[in-house]
Amino acid sequence: MLVIKTVKKMREEIARIRKNGLNLGFVPTMGALHEGHLSLIRKSVSENSITVASVFVNPIQFGKNEDLSKYPRPFDADKRKLEKNGCSLLFLPSPNEMYKERLTTIHVEDLTEKLCGLKRPGHFDGVTTVVAKLFNIISPDRAYFGEKDFQQYKVLNKMNEDLNFGIKIVPCPIIREIDGLAMSSRNIYLNKKERKNAPLVYDKLKAGAASLKKGINPALVIKKIMAEISTIEGCKTDYVEILDDSNLRKISKNTKKIRIFSAVFFGNTRLIDNIGVKIK
Amino acid sequence: MLVIKTVKKMREEIARIRKNGLNLGFVPTMGALHEGHLSLIRKSVSENSITVASVFVNPIQFGKNEDLSKYPRPFDADKRKLEKNGCSLLFLPSPNEMYKERLTTIHVEDLTEKLCGLKRPGHFDGVTTVVAKLFNIISPDRAYFGEKDFQQYKVLNKMNEDLNFGIKIVPCPIIREIDGLAMSSRNIYLNKKERKNAPLVYDKLKAGAASLKKGINPALVIKKIMAEISTIEGCKTDYVEILDDSNLRKISKNTKKIRIFSAVFFGNTRLIDNIGVKIK
Repeated sequence: MLVIKTVKKMREEIARIRKNGLNLGFVPTMGALHEGHLSLIRKSVSENSITVASVFVNPIQFGKNEDLSKYPRPFDADKRKLEKNGCSLLFLPSPNEMYKERLTTIHVEDLTEKLCGLKRPGHFDGVTTVVAKLFNIISPDRAYFGEKDFQQYKVLNKMNEDLNFGIKIVPCPIIREIDGLAMSSRNIYLNKKERKNAPLVYDKLKAGAASLKKGINPALVIKKIMAEISTIEGCKTDYVEILDDSNLRKISKNTKKIRIFSAVFFGNTRLIDNIGVKIK
Repeated sequence: MLVIKTVKKMREEIARIRKNGLNLGFVPTMGALHEGHLSLIRKSVSENSITVASVFVNPIQFGKNEDLSKYPRPFDADKRKLEKNGCSLLFLPSPNEMYKERLTTIHVEDLTEKLCGLKRPGHFDGVTTVVAKLFNIISPDRAYFGEKDFQQYKVLNKMNEDLNFGIKIVPCPIIREIDGLAMSSRNIYLNKKERKNAPLVYDKLKAGAASLKKGINPALVIKKIMAEISTIEGCKTDYVEILDDSNLRKISKNTKKIRIFSAVFFGNTRLIDNIGVKIK
């Protein structure tokens, strides 16, 4: 696996790949790779001649009081995992390489004005801006995003459509620990007790999904999930919402699939999860 | 010259051109082509194997009370002019083809918060958003912009840098009528008297440039230009400003080149112009 740190060298390598007529899958990450990320890598490897990953802890998507400085950066382990799973090329830029007196921001309305968008002001602008940069540097045929960050996938999919990047955006299912906890680079922040209790949130979401399937009113289901989460030791709800899976708007008579979204805190650690429910 | 109206067909044609290893120059326009536009076409033809123009009167860069509906659309004449000047490919999308429930906007700070940016709220967001779309659809090696819209060139150049489009942005000098009036698609709105008086504004800018060369204080020069413009029959100043040519900020001890910017009204017709002055 080739590791490239500058935009210029990356462009040269991409041009070389293109000249050989090879197609290209892209998996953008912030590193601290777990099986969720690696499932994206493997999916890309199965669908493209060349898979490019990026590892970049993107400062502009972190809020002032968030975990930018302590975000895990286990680079050697990440590199080994990428190599082992068939990644051909790693883009590993520094913050300086990516941001030089930046004045430009990409904003996606509506889809960002709910869920994590309300709780983390500016977060999605940071995500869309960095991913647009990476799309332009790498110009992949396909890009892979995990559904654990379902709102992020929707926002990036809309940006891709609206700005005509022409990339196929491929959402990939959430990968969970054996006890049901959605894999996340932030799970390592949990202490032993928190780690033990964290999967209970997913149990509540599953119970909520079953209730929705039975036709119980979403507002009641939200109430019930929140009440149940409040019984989990050390756990505080940030939000629980139930929205139309297709557009992240309120459920309407046209809704075919619903999605339940949760964000909770264990201490300072914020964990998100979601579950889809087909209703038609 | 091939005329293509859909994004899909445009991508196919661009892929075909790229497969043949040809390089590509791009001239985005709103049509109503004059010698200014055609100088960009000729410049592109001289520097690239293939020149692509777009003609699209971009609704999202017009304010509510601006001239979107009456903006001139002399398509047959435009087509002839493009062909005659060596353009190979014309992209001619409809508003519907370009905008389907758009939620995404690109904003460039600072550079847009002055001059026309203050007078036309949202204008530059409309420009950057449509040009990003066109860049992604056409993915040219070089793109050509006229210095008549100097602020627009600076904003797009910054967007290109910040979002890593990797396109060479080529600014091209203002083309003027024989009496000095900067060519503009909006000049046709002028009545006979207004057309006769319009070049006087440029005379005042030239006099201002001479004063700056002599070392006269910019604030005084602005005052003098505005006073002189007020003597032109039917002419009302929208703004006159003198800024650092490199970053559109206030002149500092590091400034090497100054630019004088003007926007004036003749009736409802708004005309902009500018002139550069090297001082070091």
